[in-house]
Amino acid sequence: MINIAILGFGVVGSGTAEVLTENKKIIEERLGCEYKIKYILDLRDFPQSPFASLITHDFNDILNDPEVSVVAEMMGGSHPAYDFTKACLEAGKNVVTSNKEVVSTFGVELCSIAKAHGVRYLFEASVGGGIPVIRPMINDLSSNKINNINGILNGTTNYILTSMRKDGASFEDALKEAQRLGYAEANPSADVDGIDAARKIVILTALASGKLADPKTIPTFGITSITLDDTKIAELFGCSIKLIGHSTVSDGKITAFVSPRMVLSSNPLSTIDDVFNGILVSANMVGDVMFYGPGAGKLPTASAVVADIIDIIANRNTDVKPIVWKEAEAGDINDFGEYSCRRVFITKSATDLVCGVTKEADGIFGLLTDEELTEIVANDIAEKLGDDLISVYRVL
Amino acid sequence: MINIAILGFGVVGSGTAEVLTENKKIIEERLGCEYKIKYILDLRDFPQSPFASLITHDFNDILNDPEVSVVAEMMGGSHPAYDFTKACLEAGKNVVTSNKEVVSTFGVELCSIAKAHGVRYLFEASVGGGIPVIRPMINDLSSNKINNINGILNGTTNYILTSMRKDGASFEDALKEAQRLGYAEANPSADVDGIDAARKIVILTALASGKLADPKTIPTFGITSITLDDTKIAELFGCSIKLIGHSTVSDGKITAFVSPRMVLSSNPLSTIDDVFNGILVSANMVGDVMFYGPGAGKLPTASAVVADIIDIIANRNTDVKPIVWKEAEAGDINDFGEYSCRRVFITKSATDLVCGVTKEADGIFGLLTDEELTEIVANDIAEKLGDDLISVYRVL
Repeated sequence: MINIAILGFGVVGSGTAEVLTENKKIIEERLGCEYKIKYILDLRDFPQSPFASLITHDFNDILNDPEVSVVAEMMGGSHPAYDFTKACLEAGKNVVTSNKEVVSTFGVELCSIAKAHGVRYLFEASVGGGIPVIRPMINDLSSNKINNINGILNGTTNYILTSMRKDGASFEDALKEAQRLGYAEANPSADVDGIDAARKIVILTALASGKLADPKTIPTFGITSITLDDTKIAELFGCSIKLIGHSTVSDGKITAFVSPRMVLSSNPLSTIDDVFNGILVSANMVGDVMFYGPGAGKLPTASAVVADIIDIIANRNTDVKPIVWKEAEAGDINDFGEYSCRRVFITKSATDLVCGVTKEADGIFGLLTDEELTEIVANDIAEKLGDDLISVYRVL
Repeated sequence: MINIAILGFGVVGSGTAEVLTENKKIIEERLGCEYKIKYILDLRDFPQSPFASLITHDFNDILNDPEVSVVAEMMGGSHPAYDFTKACLEAGKNVVTSNKEVVSTFGVELCSIAKAHGVRYLFEASVGGGIPVIRPMINDLSSNKINNINGILNGTTNYILTSMRKDGASFEDALKEAQRLGYAEANPSADVDGIDAARKIVILTALASGKLADPKTIPTFGITSITLDDTKIAELFGCSIKLIGHSTVSDGKITAFVSPRMVLSSNPLSTIDDVFNGILVSANMVGDVMFYGPGAGKLPTASAVVADIIDIIANRNTDVKPIVWKEAEAGDINDFGEYSCRRVFITKSATDLVCGVTKEADGIFGLLTDEELTEIVANDIAEKLGDDLISVYRVL
């Protein structure tokens, strides 16, 4: 009998209890062993919940119970989630989590502690919600060198951008609707300012490079300044505007950033709408593969948490190769300004040819060709356009 | 030192040698151990190849060499691929393969032999080429009950259908172009008649249900009778015609078939074009997830073969839970005629309302709504339309 403890009985925590209970029979058949949830840690009581009797308010009940070998941390935020995770790993307990803030900030240390104590720290649910992406990147792209990653990593912003494009809603109205539907928090900053996506792209980049960058240092642009006009101009180019977490890994150096981009219709990310996420991984042998699915939500995210729990139980008697990351240092990270790609410039007024960029309609310039790109630097154009320039979008 | 043998030095076999060589350094770093290719079995010699010295024409060189612990079978066809695989497994060698014909026909027996001899039989490359789908279905959707699968599983037919839709090419011309580009064989039957897709859908269905159906018994419709008019009518409905491998697993019973379908633009499979494949899996906790990427090709497919080799080497000292399948019996398989879904009927001449199906334009009927579907049986409509009926498409 494997004893599991859940830290945090919010959306994902209660979903995890539900998946473990609802699919108990088939999971135990697959595992060939039994499990039970022994504790659920939360500050609140849940007298109406079928799991009410498992609630504890004291973390030490879990930490000091030698029967608990798997702990699922779904508290959110850095503290005390990080502190509890560290304590559990040091006590020889395996930990799984959906907490991207903790993984992206403390991942190097926590993976190292797990390794030192012969236990595992798994976080499939921290990126892409229910989408299998972290384990496939480790196990299935193992024969490849990963060159770059482009992901729609945040369901809330994708919902808002889809609503602007399809329904013609303003950013403000789309945000309000997202809040009403429970997709966005009362304070939506972590989503709309790209902070959540930045955490996720540094985690994926660490899987590709072995180096975890501080998400606060990644150039991060949100979606708050995107206008309806921008989405219409994107459509003229056959593009959708998407908030993209990007990273390139080359010769051990990383380029990583989060920004809204005009995604060409030929790119499979362009059709991923609403709260769905998609992660497009380009690797040196397989080429482009994409993982698509629900990027958030109670049961989808819990599905990934429980997949990690199953992985731990299934491999409890084997030595699985631990994840080893280093902190990315300044020298590991390329200057964002040197990242080159095609761009769309949106200006106030009509202008003739500027640096080889053809004006196609009032305020709209054509896409730069690859040849043009090699001849010009975007900032030069921006300077020449001066006050006329409203915004610049990188093209994907 | 792990010694690997390759059976068959065709497209995928030579790609596997290339991936193992090109990425040797990073793969050995990940594994923490060294490997080498010791033999390549082929009837031909390859004097110009850098691997020429490894070629053998005698399978017994491999079978009787106790140093060879991993064999990659990429011969294609049932015989002698099946016989060599069986002999290797019985000799205590692990086998990986891209051979869907062997897996779909002999998978039950070969998995059972592997289990009995404490070795592994892996076949990630047999479905979806380079796309990680088999291991993710086993390991990452492990917390779920898989309800249904819809896949674009054949790159050749998807190339032809894309060419018809985008370029207005006839089926015959698109097929010729596919043959010219090396996407289709001189005898294209296995692709265009849906046989290849049928093999793949039974493999995926076995992962979901534990039961392997005989691919020859799965209702299989190819794309040879699809006309340019059909693709234009599909566009009127906002659909793309795709060759879909479908299966539903419910209460242990399987419904599986391959047929061209009108795929609504809201379905992520609708935008998968050219030789790419996509597998959309619907599971009871996570909902819909999709795996997308190159469904064929030398290096992509080899990438998946080598991922299996890495899996075997990485876990060589551990007891990995073996795959156990049963042969699907007649009682395990639902009658195809009972499969219900929305349909599009294409007729020769104008007709008024037929069984609640609204005529929208000459020869084109509207999509059936879910309500209409419950009231009518498709065959009734077909009977009433009689000679006017040209074709029926299931909608996805």
